[in-house]
Amino acid sequence: MRKIWQGRFSKETDKLVEEFTSSISFDARLYKYDIQGSIAHAKMLAKCRIISSKEAQKIISGLKQIQKEIESGKFEFKLEREDIHSNIEISLIEKIGEVGKKLHTARSRNDQVILDLRLFLREEIENILNLIQGLQKVFLSRAEEDLEVIFPAYTHLQQAQPISLAHYWLAQITALERDEERLRKTYQQVNVLPLGACALAGTSFPIDRKLVAEELNFPAISTNSLDTVAERDFVIDFLANTSLLMLHLSRLAEDLILWSTTEFGLVELDDAFCTGSSIMPQKKNPDVLELIRGKTARVYGHLISLLTLLKGLPFTYNRDLQEDKIPLFETVEIVKKSLLIYTRILPSLQLKKERIEKVLTESFMTMPDVCDYLTKQGIPFRESYQICGEIVKYCLFKKIFLKDLSLKEFKSFHPYFKEDVLEVVKPEKSVQAKKSAGGTGLTEIRKVIRRYKKRWEKNKN
Amino acid sequence: MRKIWQGRFSKETDKLVEEFTSSISFDARLYKYDIQGSIAHAKMLAKCRIISSKEAQKIISGLKQIQKEIESGKFEFKLEREDIHSNIEISLIEKIGEVGKKLHTARSRNDQVILDLRLFLREEIENILNLIQGLQKVFLSRAEEDLEVIFPAYTHLQQAQPISLAHYWLAQITALERDEERLRKTYQQVNVLPLGACALAGTSFPIDRKLVAEELNFPAISTNSLDTVAERDFVIDFLANTSLLMLHLSRLAEDLILWSTTEFGLVELDDAFCTGSSIMPQKKNPDVLELIRGKTARVYGHLISLLTLLKGLPFTYNRDLQEDKIPLFETVEIVKKSLLIYTRILPSLQLKKERIEKVLTESFMTMPDVCDYLTKQGIPFRESYQICGEIVKYCLFKKIFLKDLSLKEFKSFHPYFKEDVLEVVKPEKSVQAKKSAGGTGLTEIRKVIRRYKKRWEKNKN
Amino acid sequence: MRKIWQGRFSKETDKLVEEFTSSISFDARLYKYDIQGSIAHAKMLAKCRIISSKEAQKIISGLKQIQKEIESGKFEFKLEREDIHSNIEISLIEKIGEVGKKLHTARSRNDQVILDLRLFLREEIENILNLIQGLQKVFLSRAEEDLEVIFPAYTHLQQAQPISLAHYWLAQITALERDEERLRKTYQQVNVLPLGACALAGTSFPIDRKLVAEELNFPAISTNSLDTVAERDFVIDFLANTSLLMLHLSRLAEDLILWSTTEFGLVELDDAFCTGSSIMPQKKNPDVLELIRGKTARVYGHLISLLTLLKGLPFTYNRDLQEDKIPLFETVEIVKKSLLIYTRILPSLQLKKERIEKVLTESFMTMPDVCDYLTKQGIPFRESYQICGEIVKYCLFKKIFLKDLSLKEFKSFHPYFKEDVLEVVKPEKSVQAKKSAGGTGLTEIRKVIRRYKKRWEKNKN
Amino acid sequence: MRKIWQGRFSKETDKLVEEFTSSISFDARLYKYDIQGSIAHAKMLAKCRIISSKEAQKIISGLKQIQKEIESGKFEFKLEREDIHSNIEISLIEKIGEVGKKLHTARSRNDQVILDLRLFLREEIENILNLIQGLQKVFLSRAEEDLEVIFPAYTHLQQAQPISLAHYWLAQITALERDEERLRKTYQQVNVLPLGACALAGTSFPIDRKLVAEELNFPAISTNSLDTVAERDFVIDFLANTSLLMLHLSRLAEDLILWSTTEFGLVELDDAFCTGSSIMPQKKNPDVLELIRGKTARVYGHLISLLTLLKGLPFTYNRDLQEDKIPLFETVEIVKKSLLIYTRILPSLQLKKERIEKVLTESFMTMPDVCDYLTKQGIPFRESYQICGEIVKYCLFKKIFLKDLSLKEFKSFHPYFKEDVLEVVKPEKSVQAKKSAGGTGLTEIRKVIRRYKKRWEKNKN
Repeated sequence: MRKIWQGRFSKETDKLVEEFTSSISFDARLYKYDIQGSIAHAKMLAKCRIISSKEAQKIISGLKQIQKEIESGKFEFKLEREDIHSNIEISLIEKIGEVGKKLHTARSRNDQVILDLRLFLREEIENILNLIQGLQKVFLSRAEEDLEVIFPAYTHLQQAQPISLAHYWLAQITALERDEERLRKTYQQVNVLPLGACALAGTSFPIDRKLVAEELNFPAISTNSLDTVAERDFVIDFLANTSLLMLHLSRLAEDLILWSTTEFGLVELDDAFCTGSSIMPQKKNPDVLELIRGKTARVYGHLISLLTLLKGLPFTYNRDLQEDKIPLFETVEIVKKSLLIYTRILPSLQLKKERIEKVLTESFMTMPDVCDYLTKQGIPFRESYQICGEIVKYCLFKKIFLKDLSLKEFKSFHPYFKEDVLEVVKPEKSVQAKKSAGGTGLTEIRKVIRRYKKRWEKNKN
Repeated sequence: MRKIWQGRFSKETDKLVEEFTSSISFDARLYKYDIQGSIAHAKMLAKCRIISSKEAQKIISGLKQIQKEIESGKFEFKLEREDIHSNIEISLIEKIGEVGKKLHTARSRNDQVILDLRLFLREEIENILNLIQGLQKVFLSRAEEDLEVIFPAYTHLQQAQPISLAHYWLAQITALERDEERLRKTYQQVNVLPLGACALAGTSFPIDRKLVAEELNFPAISTNSLDTVAERDFVIDFLANTSLLMLHLSRLAEDLILWSTTEFGLVELDDAFCTGSSIMPQKKNPDVLELIRGKTARVYGHLISLLTLLKGLPFTYNRDLQEDKIPLFETVEIVKKSLLIYTRILPSLQLKKERIEKVLTESFMTMPDVCDYLTKQGIPFRESYQICGEIVKYCLFKKIFLKDLSLKEFKSFHPYFKEDVLEVVKPEKSVQAKKSAGGTGLTEIRKVIRRYKKRWEKNKN
Repeated sequence: MRKIWQGRFSKETDKLVEEFTSSISFDARLYKYDIQGSIAHAKMLAKCRIISSKEAQKIISGLKQIQKEIESGKFEFKLEREDIHSNIEISLIEKIGEVGKKLHTARSRNDQVILDLRLFLREEIENILNLIQGLQKVFLSRAEEDLEVIFPAYTHLQQAQPISLAHYWLAQITALERDEERLRKTYQQVNVLPLGACALAGTSFPIDRKLVAEELNFPAISTNSLDTVAERDFVIDFLANTSLLMLHLSRLAEDLILWSTTEFGLVELDDAFCTGSSIMPQKKNPDVLELIRGKTARVYGHLISLLTLLKGLPFTYNRDLQEDKIPLFETVEIVKKSLLIYTRILPSLQLKKERIEKVLTESFMTMPDVCDYLTKQGIPFRESYQICGEIVKYCLFKKIFLKDLSLKEFKSFHPYFKEDVLEVVKPEKSVQAKKSAGGTGLTEIRKVIRRYKKRWEKNKN
Repeated sequence: MRKIWQGRFSKETDKLVEEFTSSISFDARLYKYDIQGSIAHAKMLAKCRIISSKEAQKIISGLKQIQKEIESGKFEFKLEREDIHSNIEISLIEKIGEVGKKLHTARSRNDQVILDLRLFLREEIENILNLIQGLQKVFLSRAEEDLEVIFPAYTHLQQAQPISLAHYWLAQITALERDEERLRKTYQQVNVLPLGACALAGTSFPIDRKLVAEELNFPAISTNSLDTVAERDFVIDFLANTSLLMLHLSRLAEDLILWSTTEFGLVELDDAFCTGSSIMPQKKNPDVLELIRGKTARVYGHLISLLTLLKGLPFTYNRDLQEDKIPLFETVEIVKKSLLIYTRILPSLQLKKERIEKVLTESFMTMPDVCDYLTKQGIPFRESYQICGEIVKYCLFKKIFLKDLSLKEFKSFHPYFKEDVLEVVKPEKSVQAKKSAGGTGLTEIRKVIRRYKKRWEKNKN
């Protein structure tokens, strides 16, 4: 088989080499972006009179026909035609003859491959942004629903303080907001036309890059042709930002896995989202959440692959860069599925309220409130803290919880304790007492919920 | 030694544990941010009448005294006091007595540690941004100086096309521009006040977080207390963005290392920036550049450490997070030094013009120009390409270069070749012929240089 | 300051470059290996008559004096003398004059640096192997002690089956055994003399590498001088194997953290190994375990640094390799401390037997035993499984546990159920029933314990 | 569709969940190992009288039939049947009825999945070991062929010393030897029977694990059932060791890429192993080598994925572990292809001897020999070094090479220089002069070549 670049070579390519270097098995999925880019290029060539309008028409209709063939499964991708670009170009020439040989005027595979990647990623980031928003709305629903559910919060996985469960869901929205912002920034980086950089130096043909940019809806064109073909910042930036996104999803998974253990017993996942064991009939496993945690590791691996790939690579394009595709494609799939699956799991998550109540009351989680109680009466905080430490020690010795302490016992630790301390130790009072901005106090939470609702309604219009 | 949290414990901490958990050996460097944060906190406590003005005064002057002691080397950091926060708090109490015990009212080490980190990183990102700008200006000077130096550009490390060397330097500026933008975005993420999240739930004290934010020059406060103490997005974001920055610096290093080999011989590093061999007297090694390449790998390692650290970590704060500091601190140092050293190396870089000239002319780097020459006369590009491939094969067989071909020989490949093709093959003509936006044509490059100069002048005012 | 390699250079080294390239701040810790290597080298030079015995004597006594000065803190390491090798060589010349200039005959810093690294790592691997053995013995003690403690085991963090707690501790020994084996293999790789490779080609001096190897206790010498100075396999191998070791320690940490939550409540860490909160008086946090988990991420980062550092590095030595030291040194420290701290934590770990009992009996963990009960009577396993699934569903509906089922209820699911099924559901019976090799049956466990004891006693003699 | 574990569940699995959790799209490739393992298991069950011989016969013939169907493309893998294990088990039951339900007696998917993985990896490591040996032999052929080719060697990519090119090829064999050793060790770790661990506790059925081990050719059985289902050390060990292997292949790729640049021009890759440019007719690119370098990064990513995946994972099996397969499978493919392709490239690699000669002679690469020349006459090495440094400076100033220096000029630097120094500076003399073990001296190299030939011949018999 003749390669498009065969001219100077005096030997056929080794079969093994063909197999080793061919990317068609994975870059075939870029076909529609490749054709879209070629059509825009052909239109521009005609407008700039580099080819005739008629020639452009032939090329465009040939390309559209190829697209149809691909989409109907009739197109045969050939390994020895290396990649999606050559597969389409050669097939075009077979289809429309000599004029097809004009398409590649004033462009190179080097800038074409980046164009395809940018068009692909632009669309996928949009998809991901939509999924993020969808998931945020699910969290908001849960926040509204669970506003008055008092729930244990942890540091070091040890019981810390009572919160509104809504506060937890809102924390997830906050994290996703940062992810969204970061991905919007990535989107801007992606949304730049590379075509026209050609091999690396630009071209002497009188092309009009802005025309192509308009046609393909790029608000900007790349500004340095060497950099354009050499860099993959936008891919790495995407992988870094989705690594962070997956990090967030994996931490949520960890919490839900813990909460749905028999021992924590705070929530129950719906049967539809769990799987069983091949040998232990009693098992109901949170596989989906475990897989999200596991797939996070995969995305990290892809990020480090790309970083390593590019480290110390001489300018400009090197074939090493071909290895950016599989990591990118897999990451896109993992991220989309992980987001989607959460939007399904969360609404059906059941709270085990009796158990939650028990965990909260048979505890010392309002000890910090007792500490503040003393501090508010003028005892220096660090001293209040010591007194409260003694109280804990006493309870542990007596094997009782904070709620079991009588006023008399409280008073034996400090005369400032009054009747009202027995209210202070109640989990719901603890939550109500919080007033600081960003805290778990219900008024504050309601404000946050309203803020999100307003913002999202606005976006709709 | 009594810990600040000793109350409930019935045993002293194991010595080995103290050593294992203590962070003072590395977080001592945060002292000034810790004190700055505590002063702002004390002022707010007073303004909100949680402590008296007089108490605040005492605390503040105690803290300032501690700062002086640290800066004059008189302060003794104690391992058994765990971290910078406790070292300062306990020392404050020793110094000013009971009132010192009030400082920690309505805050937690959990939000304090993030505050310190944010104050530190905010300052360091500013330093890095300045260094980036400094380096960009160095590149711009070189671009102006080397505008008319025609230089070989490579793909796959094989000779590709002639460019203006200025185009290469401008590519570096372009890459750094993206780094700058990304770091500005990171800066915004860092620039958010965490204090007031307390342990994780906020507080029932009537604090005013906005006051603290103003005092510390934060334009925004964090919006969810759980998220505030749990997340380290801004650290990872910084590490990801500096990984990309180092990636750029490492690719430049690779190129300069290659260009300064005897074999390429295109440039020569100044003696002041090279080192020798212990055993081979003739050696002059580009160690500095190799170290930049090597240190890039270190920064990647730090990024992957942090990502792995946080994956699947349950909410909210866990002690694992302490391990974010050394990677962060080391990265800051590496990045600053690497940027700085480039601003020193580049101005003294010498071009070996004779060799550059030879490389350009004894080559086929203007073959694409010949190809375009034919295409412009109506021969379909892919056909022109084949013809040119044959020309290359012919030259290789005859062991001559493109410049050695006579018009007659050209004509033997295609009748369209005329006298003017002998001009087309000249490297300088090739560069001049490029007209496309972002390409290596001199007019285009001059435009780009002017644009940068204008922008930077503007920024000055 | 004159560098040892200054000869051909016409300019002094830039100060910033000195600082950037100097490694003395971290490689000073290799001093004793460097001196040990130099002494062996000097002895060999004398024996091979390359220098005189008298000269060797002077050199050796000079080196020993330097070692004393370093160890008594009197030696001044100088940044501008770059590294430990030059610091010692220059200081030797200052001390003993001209004859000191003969030490570097027939060797290079390239092979010297690897020698130091190998001597260092050889010793540290021995230390680590001892710590591993120490920890294994701690596990064995616990296994003997906890042999009859029936304990819940988990898959997917859901309750799976009852085991002997000893079985869990033995699993840790098994994992450490693999770590030990792997590190022994690394040790063999480290334990090879590099000296004599010189810069990269070997030497024309009539050196005797085997003499040096004997002197330094290396059983083998490296076989290819290019490879010798170019490779860092042994460092990466060490980092990979310690990554796996830390992985094991981190999983154990995770389990202990979970088990010591209030909700699981299966174990309690001794107060001496926990720390408290700055604001929540009730907190007792497993910081040490969290840090082990966190430091694991650091070691991974170091591994990926080294791998990335060496990828695509041209042969042979490149200065990038200097960046192998900090990751290696830090890893050695992390690993040693993490192993040591476990040997302290584990003996004092308290079991909360009441809670363990409750978790076991208020569960379905012996459901697989019921399933096997039916299967043993001829019901195809997959059918038994379905029946047991129905039983679980029934219990969940009635909110009872397996232990609460009456014989009558059992029979309602299948007539094969007899009186003895009420025994089968008891956790201790479940454990006793296990007979397979490697399983949790007590007889089997006792056998394993005996095997380890025997083996370790043998090793002693 | 009924799942094998449906019993206790009251709801069907969500479709999205099925898709998210199913592994059949990638673990189908394990079919033959799964069937092989099931056959061995069935035979053992019969021998131990857990099922009857007749039942075992039916099961085995059913399994064999399924294998045939898979291999002839008639078997339909079903997504909703989750994985290869369930696909085969359910299909078996459909095919042979009730008796098929007995196959899963006394085993679990947890140990089955590891069995399949171990059988797979055992075979693939054998394949890789064969490929390594094949490549080593290619290097040995080249070493024999290129024994007398004097070639430049580099440190810091600067010309260092002349070597025999054979020495370079032998360095590759040496590196591969370590890879081989490491992989043999991995093989031993893989080569352990897991089956019989069941879910995690072993079983009460009177199974005989040694019988299964014999049947499947495993020399050992795993010793702790918890560890057996929880660990993936052997996968990580494999990925770490293949990362090192790829590191070696990537460094070789880097060298060959450099050597085949126009500027170095030392070697030429055969046309059959290069590809061209879509736009630059003169290009001949070493894509294959670049891809090896690039794919190395991919393998690193897979290693870090697995390490991260398992960090801090609670005991024992968690679904996260499913994500070990794609990284493992991809790594196996990359490694095999990369090794194979080198065995094809290297024999056809052409040396450009004229250029090599020129590079060697127009240089200072024998300067260390001059230095040793003086040192051998009693001048302290460090002094000889300074003198040689002056000579280099002189030559650089006069723009001459070492070969151009007259005896008179030599003498002007030191009176010890005699006629014979003019021989010493010749590259071939430099190589001949090397005598040290492991060095580039030809006698030494011949010894090494003989040693390998002998060893490999021995292995054949």
